[in-house]
Amino acid sequence: MSDVYAVRRARLRDRYAAAGSTAALVSRPANVRYLAGGAPPGAVLLLGPGEDTLLCPRTAEGTGTEGGGRVDERLRVSVLPTASGDPAVAAAGLLVASAAESLAVEEHHLTVSRHRAIGSVAPRLALTDLAGAVEQQRIVKDEGEIACLRIAAEIADQALGELLESILVGRTERHLALELERRLIDHGADGPAFPTSVATGPHSGRPGHRPSDRRVEEGDFLFVGLGADYRGYRCLIGRTFVIGTSPADWQIELYELVFAAQRAGREGLVPGMGYRDVDRASRQPLEAAGYGEGLAPRTGHGVGLEIEEDPQLAPAAMGKLDACVPVTVGPGVHLPGRGGVRIDDTLVVRPEADGGPELLTITTKELLAL
Amino acid sequence: MSDVYAVRRARLRDRYAAAGSTAALVSRPANVRYLAGGAPPGAVLLLGPGEDTLLCPRTAEGTGTEGGGRVDERLRVSVLPTASGDPAVAAAGLLVASAAESLAVEEHHLTVSRHRAIGSVAPRLALTDLAGAVEQQRIVKDEGEIACLRIAAEIADQALGELLESILVGRTERHLALELERRLIDHGADGPAFPTSVATGPHSGRPGHRPSDRRVEEGDFLFVGLGADYRGYRCLIGRTFVIGTSPADWQIELYELVFAAQRAGREGLVPGMGYRDVDRASRQPLEAAGYGEGLAPRTGHGVGLEIEEDPQLAPAAMGKLDACVPVTVGPGVHLPGRGGVRIDDTLVVRPEADGGPELLTITTKELLAL
Repeated sequence: MSDVYAVRRARLRDRYAAAGSTAALVSRPANVRYLAGGAPPGAVLLLGPGEDTLLCPRTAEGTGTEGGGRVDERLRVSVLPTASGDPAVAAAGLLVASAAESLAVEEHHLTVSRHRAIGSVAPRLALTDLAGAVEQQRIVKDEGEIACLRIAAEIADQALGELLESILVGRTERHLALELERRLIDHGADGPAFPTSVATGPHSGRPGHRPSDRRVEEGDFLFVGLGADYRGYRCLIGRTFVIGTSPADWQIELYELVFAAQRAGREGLVPGMGYRDVDRASRQPLEAAGYGEGLAPRTGHGVGLEIEEDPQLAPAAMGKLDACVPVTVGPGVHLPGRGGVRIDDTLVVRPEADGGPELLTITTKELLAL
Repeated sequence: MSDVYAVRRARLRDRYAAAGSTAALVSRPANVRYLAGGAPPGAVLLLGPGEDTLLCPRTAEGTGTEGGGRVDERLRVSVLPTASGDPAVAAAGLLVASAAESLAVEEHHLTVSRHRAIGSVAPRLALTDLAGAVEQQRIVKDEGEIACLRIAAEIADQALGELLESILVGRTERHLALELERRLIDHGADGPAFPTSVATGPHSGRPGHRPSDRRVEEGDFLFVGLGADYRGYRCLIGRTFVIGTSPADWQIELYELVFAAQRAGREGLVPGMGYRDVDRASRQPLEAAGYGEGLAPRTGHGVGLEIEEDPQLAPAAMGKLDACVPVTVGPGVHLPGRGGVRIDDTLVVRPEADGGPELLTITTKELLAL
């Protein structure tokens, strides 16, 4: 396990070397953490041709190496002096005296200004595009990563379970969200995986709803979407409940529809299935029921060191699922003015011989009346 | 007041027109919000030569216009169809059929990939650099902005005041931070201005310390740094306390030293004073006492729509304070293994004739033993 980061760096090196680059500069924080074990704020990772080096800004009194996970002990760490500027530029400077002729950089992360500054400090270095090479490598997880996701999901299930035992009517979306985030921490999360979403009544079913001062009322749909960050790995769970003793007919019908759509998506999570086919499985029942117009552009996505990463489960997505890819499946329907239903799970794609998709978020999906 | 955004856009237009550009594309979220009143996630603002347009991605069922403040009603809003890609690229596309010959973009915000995509869709458009034009314009605040900061500071003072009345010993940094964030919301904040910092014992005095599971103990220094976001405007307050009945001599001495340094910085906040001179005023007493080595690279900075914006109060900073510039003054000393003291305030630079600097964060700076 302890050479996991060195192995990841070696895989990446094979890839950029095959594309003709002699060195690579990784600047996107999740990519740095994936390859270095930790990503102190502002740190960049320089790979080859010499020793791999993590370059960190010196922040105030600190060395700059704290935070964002524990850096691989076998990696050279260079803490830059105060006010020495951008570590990405310093990294390029290190190559000036080396044999490197080209440097692959993350053009989808570096700003135009930083890219130009790198070019200025090392004008004879050809800058190429590393593109999404690290993101691609991150899609399939190892069992260590999946174990972190499993714990993250367990923490989110616990936090959600406790909330359901408390009195909800009269409390605001903001307060419920804060309480959930406190419970995530209580159960060992390093933090929430993303800003917790609590949506009541007419807000329910809107993806990405930010908690407001609206209070939970009798008869509401209540949507709760949360996740834990455990050692950098992030999961997601979303559930919709009804408040009061007996759901209305339209609520039961809508819930059953979304539940069936979500189940169809989950059942599509087998190795070799196209990303778009999983999306289709969730989307088709909702379209058939006349809700095609307002659907979200995708019904799920990968999770890992970021809460939204590849693959995208969307109509135009290219590619096929592999085993050991964790994804969310979360279709939803929102009826303007009335509210709606979303049900999100995090699962890991597994071969059918191994029992099929592994459900990480195990809170019940029965329609609970609270 | 209602044409405040149009006036800001007109000022920016004068500036980029003088630099030879016929249009500008603003992509940095705080800059979009400053000029458009709101910044829905992913939105970009296209200025001139035709009607100014806010281009928003359509997110799921929403129109994409929610969140990040209320968009100026007089601004044209274009909500892009699902899956139409990057609004910045769509904005450049709008210019293809126009008379625009050049477009100023924010090279310090746009990635290389986005910049290239803009160039591809409008190959005859010369792309120039808007650089920090909007950030510069944001430095001096109007009274509406200062009113928001004043409320933000009042909220932070209230949250901190309530915490001080509760029992602290035995509670973890994480829990105290979460409680403070809940209290910020209780008092009307839209959210914390930045992740709340609580640092106990040996952690105290470290800038940017992230709350850990360490519990408050008798004899500790306790540092609390927090701020509220009120309508997008963010303030900062930091205070250091001692836990227990009687501070040790070294604690009193260190506190008095940092207090004197912080007061010297505050007293330097007059129009016309150099940024570096304010920094020097705070820094010199700490250096004279032998703590020069480990000091943070700056002792304060501007606040507004971002918690860290221009100006920087640092040894190499160029420029002079204007009236109506809100800044923080927050020197600190950290003794490795023992802890330390930081004291941060948010103030607005005012002419001496108007009474000098306006202190927004009014919680006492006496050394409280809790």
